[in-house]
Amino acid sequence: MSKDALIFAEREREKQLQQLVELVSIPSISTLPEHKSDIEKAAQWLVTHLQTIGLQNAKAYPTEKHPVVYAEWLGALGQPTVLIYGHYDVQPVDPLELWKSHPFKPEVRENYLYARGSSDDKGQTFAHIKAVEAYLKTAKRLPINVKFLIEGEEEIGSPSLTNFFSSHKELLKADVALISDSHILSPTQPSIVYGLRGMTYIEMEVTGPDHDLHSGSYGGAVPNPLNALAAIVAKLHNEDGSVAITGFYDRVRKPSPEEQAELARLPFNEKEFCKEAGIPAPWGEKGFSIVERLGARPTLDVNGIWGGFIGAGAKTVIPSKASAKVSMRLVPDQDPHEIAKLFQQYVEKIAPKTVSVKVRAIHFAEPAIVDRKIPYMKAATQAYKESFGAEPLFTREGGSIPVVTLLKKQLGLDSILMGFGLSDDRLHSPNERFYLPNFYKGIQTSIHFMSLLKK
Amino acid sequence: MSKDALIFAEREREKQLQQLVELVSIPSISTLPEHKSDIEKAAQWLVTHLQTIGLQNAKAYPTEKHPVVYAEWLGALGQPTVLIYGHYDVQPVDPLELWKSHPFKPEVRENYLYARGSSDDKGQTFAHIKAVEAYLKTAKRLPINVKFLIEGEEEIGSPSLTNFFSSHKELLKADVALISDSHILSPTQPSIVYGLRGMTYIEMEVTGPDHDLHSGSYGGAVPNPLNALAAIVAKLHNEDGSVAITGFYDRVRKPSPEEQAELARLPFNEKEFCKEAGIPAPWGEKGFSIVERLGARPTLDVNGIWGGFIGAGAKTVIPSKASAKVSMRLVPDQDPHEIAKLFQQYVEKIAPKTVSVKVRAIHFAEPAIVDRKIPYMKAATQAYKESFGAEPLFTREGGSIPVVTLLKKQLGLDSILMGFGLSDDRLHSPNERFYLPNFYKGIQTSIHFMSLLKK
Repeated sequence: MSKDALIFAEREREKQLQQLVELVSIPSISTLPEHKSDIEKAAQWLVTHLQTIGLQNAKAYPTEKHPVVYAEWLGALGQPTVLIYGHYDVQPVDPLELWKSHPFKPEVRENYLYARGSSDDKGQTFAHIKAVEAYLKTAKRLPINVKFLIEGEEEIGSPSLTNFFSSHKELLKADVALISDSHILSPTQPSIVYGLRGMTYIEMEVTGPDHDLHSGSYGGAVPNPLNALAAIVAKLHNEDGSVAITGFYDRVRKPSPEEQAELARLPFNEKEFCKEAGIPAPWGEKGFSIVERLGARPTLDVNGIWGGFIGAGAKTVIPSKASAKVSMRLVPDQDPHEIAKLFQQYVEKIAPKTVSVKVRAIHFAEPAIVDRKIPYMKAATQAYKESFGAEPLFTREGGSIPVVTLLKKQLGLDSILMGFGLSDDRLHSPNERFYLPNFYKGIQTSIHFMSLLKK
Repeated sequence: MSKDALIFAEREREKQLQQLVELVSIPSISTLPEHKSDIEKAAQWLVTHLQTIGLQNAKAYPTEKHPVVYAEWLGALGQPTVLIYGHYDVQPVDPLELWKSHPFKPEVRENYLYARGSSDDKGQTFAHIKAVEAYLKTAKRLPINVKFLIEGEEEIGSPSLTNFFSSHKELLKADVALISDSHILSPTQPSIVYGLRGMTYIEMEVTGPDHDLHSGSYGGAVPNPLNALAAIVAKLHNEDGSVAITGFYDRVRKPSPEEQAELARLPFNEKEFCKEAGIPAPWGEKGFSIVERLGARPTLDVNGIWGGFIGAGAKTVIPSKASAKVSMRLVPDQDPHEIAKLFQQYVEKIAPKTVSVKVRAIHFAEPAIVDRKIPYMKAATQAYKESFGAEPLFTREGGSIPVVTLLKKQLGLDSILMGFGLSDDRLHSPNERFYLPNFYKGIQTSIHFMSLLKK
């Protein structure tokens, strides 16, 4: 039955692209209130489309902010249920003048579809919709059960999702979640993200004198919070690039030799990496490869620092306060709340006694790792192999995808991160694009995946 | 002849205060264009007043910005000539709501005259004018020759003074300069500032990646300029609080045992100092007293630092650039330009190799020290002793008074810093005030000083 679906999908490519162009033409920017009606329009477009291709109970569920689109096909008795997550909202488009074609007037140039949302995430999500359609238009049924959950708030941090999950546990019940909101290594080398770093984000304020002082009258005899802050920040790393916070690495799960071997197999070009990042040479923790540093190792970075006089010219002030924002990317089994405590204890220990330091954690995200041995993962691996002709590699991502943690915590679901994007899709930037061969192979991969999941 | 002058001065106190009230009522704020006419008014008031009391060639010399007031009395053949420097411009007054009485509606409360400019510097300068008047109204002559130079740009950095000096060398020819724009230790303990620190002011910019990066995707493998800047700043000091720049102390003139003993004699209350600065405990270079740290030792302070995300909330950016402003207070015989070079060399040496650093010096000021053994200094000491009844102590100031360097460099003049202010006069702040007993004793001191200078 997958064979007919594959043939149907291949024959329909022109129509699939036409429909995707329709969807990405809707400027559903979630963060801008003036696009509220476009958000509604995109949600409604999806509901109608999901109904048209034969899904049931398609509905836009209102939330406090933007609606969640849901639809299902549950006719495969005794078969697993996959919850396919995606999002129909997009990032703002400015600076508009840097776009070669209008972000909401999609254009195909050299196998790429250029439009805001083409890769992130309308195009990737639409691949699964077209796979489902291929089955329903040929076999009139799916090999497994499918539920779509397509939200409109991903780009603003999914504020309504927690409530929606807790009040729709029955509706969302499934065996595994499938998310296509990531990228693969190259058009010929698919990959599956199985690890995502968590985060603890800290704001720290150092106070020296209780009011600003003139450095001519006081310099040399009073504690300067700017110097003290720099001293604290400098002590957050050891000379070898590792994080110096006491206990920071205690819970870091050691990768198995097998996992290490796999990470070592990942194609990685240091020169390319440096060029992309715009740096003369890489930096980081000694004893680990760049691939490991980026995905498998916890890290610490200052994201902002400020204090004193920052205008033009020379003002000789010793300010009362200096501040910094610090984020730590975490890996399993580090606990973001525990890390916040360790950070605070360490800073209290190293801070010069002549200043006071306030540490405040302002954001937490759990690190996530998916067991690569669960059957769903094996099916995903095989599906990629059949559509791309190459075995996918397993990668760990440096960033966080908060919905993965939410799905696990609230619904008990592991997530398969089956991406179809590429690293140069320019997400959140001008000239976002989606590589169309990946769109079509994405549809094939999804068709294979559903077939392979069938018991 | 000084006796008559002293009697006259004492008898005239009411009138002297009335006239000073008139002068400080003029809102001659040099930095605000809307007060341009007040600046002119204050200059004209002074010219008229100097003429009235019997000085010659009184004139407001126009400059590119605000006029310089000049007047002279040169009838003491064979006697030394003193150039009395002062300034008639004042600082802005905001926040106005913190003033108990209006800054330009002077009010006397408990022996203090409250008004903007009362201490800085109209009141202190006016004491010398009243001393000259006392002589001219009694003996019809002065014991020495006097030139007044009262500028209107001190609070904005004296931009016209260099040109005025170089084009009026003959007019300003003198043997010594006398400046009353500082404070003494207490109403019963006069003091003479003989050392002023110089300055090298640096701006430094650290570049990591050539564009901002997402810390999720790159954190742990790229050099973060914020971390690098903190590491550099942290290495500018040694553990013992001394400055770590190679060669920084090489030219620091060692104080003589006599000078050290004098500095040690200065009354200093650490508790008071900490309270005034709003700090729990002092900080600074080990092995030196706070008095030495503040005036006799060179220091380094970060005056501003910025980079990355400094808004509310959590943004996970690794910025391309991070910057800091650093000022170094210098003592004789440190050379501000050489110090800038040493700073640059040191930073280049310690900066992590994965970032680039640009160092730019934006301001220089020479340190100044006046030989306490010149005869003019002895006369000043004796003058204080006769009017205040106590021998003045010699102090070194933490800040710079640029005109002292200009007078030395352009006119070859040593400056006697004969202050009549007090440390709690609230210069540049709301409720600026001048302690009236110091005003009257200032007039006496000036009368004695002129008499003592007579050969």
